[in-house]
Amino acid sequence: MIKTDLIVIGAGPTGLFTVFEAGLLKLKCHLIDALPQPGGQCSEIYPKKPIYDIPAFPEILAGDLVDNLMEQIKPFEPGFTLGERAETLDKQADGSYIVTTNKGTKHQAPVVVIAGGLGSFEPRKPPIENIIDFEDKGVAYMVKDPEVYRNKKVLIAGGGDSALDWAIFLADVASEVSLVHRRKEFRGALDSVEKAAELAKVGKIRLFTEAEVKKLYGDEHLEAVVVKHNDSEKGETYVEVDNFIPLFGLSPKLGPIGDWGLEIERNAIKVNNAKDYQTNIPGVFAIGDVNTYEGKLKLILSGFHEAAVMCQFAYQLINPGKRYVMKYTTVGGVTGFDGSKKEAKKEVVQSIA
Amino acid sequence: MIKTDLIVIGAGPTGLFTVFEAGLLKLKCHLIDALPQPGGQCSEIYPKKPIYDIPAFPEILAGDLVDNLMEQIKPFEPGFTLGERAETLDKQADGSYIVTTNKGTKHQAPVVVIAGGLGSFEPRKPPIENIIDFEDKGVAYMVKDPEVYRNKKVLIAGGGDSALDWAIFLADVASEVSLVHRRKEFRGALDSVEKAAELAKVGKIRLFTEAEVKKLYGDEHLEAVVVKHNDSEKGETYVEVDNFIPLFGLSPKLGPIGDWGLEIERNAIKVNNAKDYQTNIPGVFAIGDVNTYEGKLKLILSGFHEAAVMCQFAYQLINPGKRYVMKYTTVGGVTGFDGSKKEAKKEVVQSIA
Repeated sequence: MIKTDLIVIGAGPTGLFTVFEAGLLKLKCHLIDALPQPGGQCSEIYPKKPIYDIPAFPEILAGDLVDNLMEQIKPFEPGFTLGERAETLDKQADGSYIVTTNKGTKHQAPVVVIAGGLGSFEPRKPPIENIIDFEDKGVAYMVKDPEVYRNKKVLIAGGGDSALDWAIFLADVASEVSLVHRRKEFRGALDSVEKAAELAKVGKIRLFTEAEVKKLYGDEHLEAVVVKHNDSEKGETYVEVDNFIPLFGLSPKLGPIGDWGLEIERNAIKVNNAKDYQTNIPGVFAIGDVNTYEGKLKLILSGFHEAAVMCQFAYQLINPGKRYVMKYTTVGGVTGFDGSKKEAKKEVVQSIA
Repeated sequence: MIKTDLIVIGAGPTGLFTVFEAGLLKLKCHLIDALPQPGGQCSEIYPKKPIYDIPAFPEILAGDLVDNLMEQIKPFEPGFTLGERAETLDKQADGSYIVTTNKGTKHQAPVVVIAGGLGSFEPRKPPIENIIDFEDKGVAYMVKDPEVYRNKKVLIAGGGDSALDWAIFLADVASEVSLVHRRKEFRGALDSVEKAAELAKVGKIRLFTEAEVKKLYGDEHLEAVVVKHNDSEKGETYVEVDNFIPLFGLSPKLGPIGDWGLEIERNAIKVNNAKDYQTNIPGVFAIGDVNTYEGKLKLILSGFHEAAVMCQFAYQLINPGKRYVMKYTTVGGVTGFDGSKKEAKKEVVQSIA
């Protein structure tokens, strides 16, 4: 059982910044995210895209935003349960909650903060009859750890940035990389498309365009796939593989959270924005893109504000009757849980003459 | 008459970021601030102090925060009326407002946004009987343009960073610089104290400690001051000066805004935080540290959020019935009023084989 002060569901920018604001109040956070790394969409979907509306950043790449937040929260030693989806919420006799993931990891805390963005990003699965039988037995819908594919025969399907980038990356790791795409044309960053073309030319990537994976074969584990060409004259190609990675994008789903008894409105969780961003379940808050109220803007900067306000009220729930006096970081500095201290240079009081 | 879409009172971080959010909605802003430069407290009081709680900046100097915001809002061409205090608010027959400053500058717009921070920073004046007679005639309580003092005889009073920094700076500009302080000890950044000591030693700053300015003399313009020493044996020193700059700090006052008929609670303006941050006067909004509501945090990051939400409702007031569909800057880019365009690199659609 992982015990903490705030269980934060979602490790996107809002969830990450919650660690900082909670930390200033000496509260500890543990974050759960279905994706294999922190940063949410910013890391998974568009790490190389610039964002222009983060205050005081005329331009910042989404991936850099995440890196900066990770550095900012480091002193407050967040815990992470990654690659697992929060599945159930159970209220305990003492008023605390236990959140259990799809892999059975249990977390307990007096406060639960849902910072789930648009929901957990679920991979779009190709319509191959027996694909479910091979999940975790050679089939994966996202790359969690590329080392798994060292010296393996890997076949990737897809025509976007993820398919291109992983084909390029794994060309140096796997023993064989094949890339299958329904069309001739790929859609992605110019340099990714060019790099993949180059690797295909020198035979480091085996390319199948205007083709789709239609069948999977294997006993205990995946052993081969059948690639069907659009051009019926070309027919089918049987490819021996250890791994098949279809990368057809992720689509956000509120998922199991939708069954927790929360008041939901147009796929988002209603909160009391006039006060504390608490949901209809006491002790359960929702902040960032996952919540809704009149005038709600799904902006990262709004998630930051909501995190700060919510933490004050979470503090009161956890420490009833105790008064916390907010100190400005410029005045009081930041003291990490590891004892580290950042603070403005002190003024000196000194005679001149 | 300056005409604009949003009159923003206060050019601190919240007021500045309002220009950006309004600009995304194609609304133009004009900012009024009593201080001589944009940035509010961050520029005037603590430009060299680090802030640790701006999201995604593990550490940023207050002055750099302002510089970044100024760069971010540049495409939206904000207007500025600086060094003037917003004095009156007058509703017009057409529903618009005219805001007039203490210097008589008039601004007209359908929406007024008060982003006034803790209020306008009013200098603390020393208790010298006839000091008011010499205001703008040799006496100034802040340095707006140091060039005014070129080749003049200047006397600065005060023992903090402002007094030290301006004495150091003007030592190279003025023909004579005197520095008067009640105590022996100065309170400021170590390097400022050391630099001032050095300049005093080589005679570039004439130093009077344990002394106070007691009398001012002059006909049309200031001609001399009397410095009274604490040590009665030393008596008084008569110093010929062109300028006297007492720098005893600024204290925030809500000021004339307090008389506009706004609902005030503990020196802050009550707003509808459940919706649009509008005050009790329709079309007049209050955002940032100047407003109050349950759970209000006087944090810069909260001002940013309030600015974004407020702008959506200001848009509806200005364009009744027109629907604005928010686009993400990552997707739609940012188009400046000057025609400049910032946007993410487009994806290419290209065949590999």
